[in-house]
Amino acid sequence: MKTSRLEAFSDGVIAILITIMVLELRPPHDVTLESLRPLIPVLIGYLLSFVFLGIYWVNHHHLIHASQHVNGRVLWANIHLLFWLSLIPFATAWMGETHFSKWPVVLYGVLLLFAAVSYYLLVRALLTLHGPESLLADALGADFKGKISIVFYLVSLALAFIHPWIGFIGYVLVAIMWLIPDRRIERKIN
Amino acid sequence: MKTSRLEAFSDGVIAILITIMVLELRPPHDVTLESLRPLIPVLIGYLLSFVFLGIYWVNHHHLIHASQHVNGRVLWANIHLLFWLSLIPFATAWMGETHFSKWPVVLYGVLLLFAAVSYYLLVRALLTLHGPESLLADALGADFKGKISIVFYLVSLALAFIHPWIGFIGYVLVAIMWLIPDRRIERKIN
Amino acid sequence: MKTSRLEAFSDGVIAILITIMVLELRPPHDVTLESLRPLIPVLIGYLLSFVFLGIYWVNHHHLIHASQHVNGRVLWANIHLLFWLSLIPFATAWMGETHFSKWPVVLYGVLLLFAAVSYYLLVRALLTLHGPESLLADALGADFKGKISIVFYLVSLALAFIHPWIGFIGYVLVAIMWLIPDRRIERKIN
Amino acid sequence: MKTSRLEAFSDGVIAILITIMVLELRPPHDVTLESLRPLIPVLIGYLLSFVFLGIYWVNHHHLIHASQHVNGRVLWANIHLLFWLSLIPFATAWMGETHFSKWPVVLYGVLLLFAAVSYYLLVRALLTLHGPESLLADALGADFKGKISIVFYLVSLALAFIHPWIGFIGYVLVAIMWLIPDRRIERKIN
Repeated sequence: MKTSRLEAFSDGVIAILITIMVLELRPPHDVTLESLRPLIPVLIGYLLSFVFLGIYWVNHHHLIHASQHVNGRVLWANIHLLFWLSLIPFATAWMGETHFSKWPVVLYGVLLLFAAVSYYLLVRALLTLHGPESLLADALGADFKGKISIVFYLVSLALAFIHPWIGFIGYVLVAIMWLIPDRRIERKIN
Repeated sequence: MKTSRLEAFSDGVIAILITIMVLELRPPHDVTLESLRPLIPVLIGYLLSFVFLGIYWVNHHHLIHASQHVNGRVLWANIHLLFWLSLIPFATAWMGETHFSKWPVVLYGVLLLFAAVSYYLLVRALLTLHGPESLLADALGADFKGKISIVFYLVSLALAFIHPWIGFIGYVLVAIMWLIPDRRIERKIN
Repeated sequence: MKTSRLEAFSDGVIAILITIMVLELRPPHDVTLESLRPLIPVLIGYLLSFVFLGIYWVNHHHLIHASQHVNGRVLWANIHLLFWLSLIPFATAWMGETHFSKWPVVLYGVLLLFAAVSYYLLVRALLTLHGPESLLADALGADFKGKISIVFYLVSLALAFIHPWIGFIGYVLVAIMWLIPDRRIERKIN
Repeated sequence: MKTSRLEAFSDGVIAILITIMVLELRPPHDVTLESLRPLIPVLIGYLLSFVFLGIYWVNHHHLIHASQHVNGRVLWANIHLLFWLSLIPFATAWMGETHFSKWPVVLYGVLLLFAAVSYYLLVRALLTLHGPESLLADALGADFKGKISIVFYLVSLALAFIHPWIGFIGYVLVAIMWLIPDRRIERKIN
């Protein structure tokens, strides 16, 4: 089986997730600039989730690009990843509406953690299929970022119980880590 | 006619269906962990429908992958399948909101039944086009799972009148049957 | 320019339109079978619009399949068609909620008419680009169905002023005309 | 990396954005023709945003068509563009509901400006990757329209503070400028 439909389906789901979140941004009934102020926490949540879904899309793009074929296990590992990502808009909305209260921020972090773990399982499924000598195995290397992300999420989750904003900043740091270009890996994959 | 646009359109519709269901998961106005409890039935329904739509996508992927071309009848058999699938979010929402009452669970089962029948009709349309000697006919074999699913749905529907949860468990069993990997068929299709 | 992205974008828009209509089907708060009865007009409207969007997708599929390339005029003729199709969910919702009153049914017919005219303009734009000796010109022939549809819509619109259901039946007849397989044309296009 | 998935993802996001705006067009509860009148400003906003998103899709189509490959910077420049476009439905809804008041019109213009700037950054990222001798550089030329658009948006924004409709007309003029076919560029790109 080729990778084209897995790409198309994942692109579709991620494109929908990244855009339906904007439906939470309800226009105010007032016409003043100040009436936008209550939307600021919603917008911050939207921005972070947009970036996270963007990161998953870019990484997924790199990962599948380096893969030659898929099997049933890979298809389901991919659907499993999409399931956790699909709950991101829900947690984003709860977090924004409650101005980053403890439990919404914890739930958001739990989803990020589960998404990271399911991404790791997808990587495992692809590596099992392609073998340790494959281009994919070479391109992925030790997958340092993927593993460190899971640790970061766990620490951020614990810190969110002290104060939600500390946990939130932990999630932001993971996003920044992924946004910093990693030319070495990119060169290998291309 | 080639299969690429039928794939793209089906991928689009299934991707949208699998994600708009999450819009039913309205964030609570409260900030406590307990405020998520009323969402549990909605989440269970979401999870089951996510899995069912995932199964249809994976099976559709296998089916079209083994096909070489399509005709007008196949296009309409496919649209017919998408019609029944498109009503799944509605039945999922009704079932979740009413905490799995009798009629919502029955309606959900009726939709699963009609989706299974329309999938069977799509298989028939493709087999008529490709002929009994085709790779497709060989890959599908006796289509045991497809036929047994229809029987399972009918029995589950009848049992849902005794108690909705018994019917619901019947639907879950069909999903589990499809999730168990079937390496023999997969090898043939690939 | 090749046709692939025009196909992908149109597939995306039509897939979204055909599925967001289902969001109008709000689950009842009651758990009885009777509580579904008020949804019947909404469901009838949904079914008709699903079929119409399905017809447009199938015809669009045939049309672009017979085309080799596109230009700026074709891209905009296509966006123009998608604009009128994008208003179908709005008219469907109004028609269903008002139980097929006169003005909603008239508006629905006006949109079908404008969609048919814009489809005709898309056909013209493609024919101008491909020339009268092209495979496309041969496959389309006299485009009898396209022209008769426009006449049917105009008559149905006039009749909708006498009684909305008469107009509605006119729209249904056009849909049935398109659903009847037209093997001669299909063979040519393939 | 090839351009196909960047195209597919962008097509998906733009297709969703262009269609979810129609969800703002809520059908009136009345059945008279007059009951549609309050929807006219919403419809005008919808039409303009539909055209703007259509322009971005067509230009994006031309731009990526003239490109041979992408890198991580291009992927993120593209996601950055999609972020600003994704806020268009929000500003459109606010503008329509408030009958084109000052601040909603200003916000709409700011988003158009940021979208134009992020499109410019995407062009830069692609030019850096392909080099000054590439087909892409030749096809883009001096990118006069792109630069003049940014100036037009800035002037329109300033004028919107005098009267929102003057600013709005400025945005419409930019749209018209892009809709006028530019055969010279199109020939080069094809």
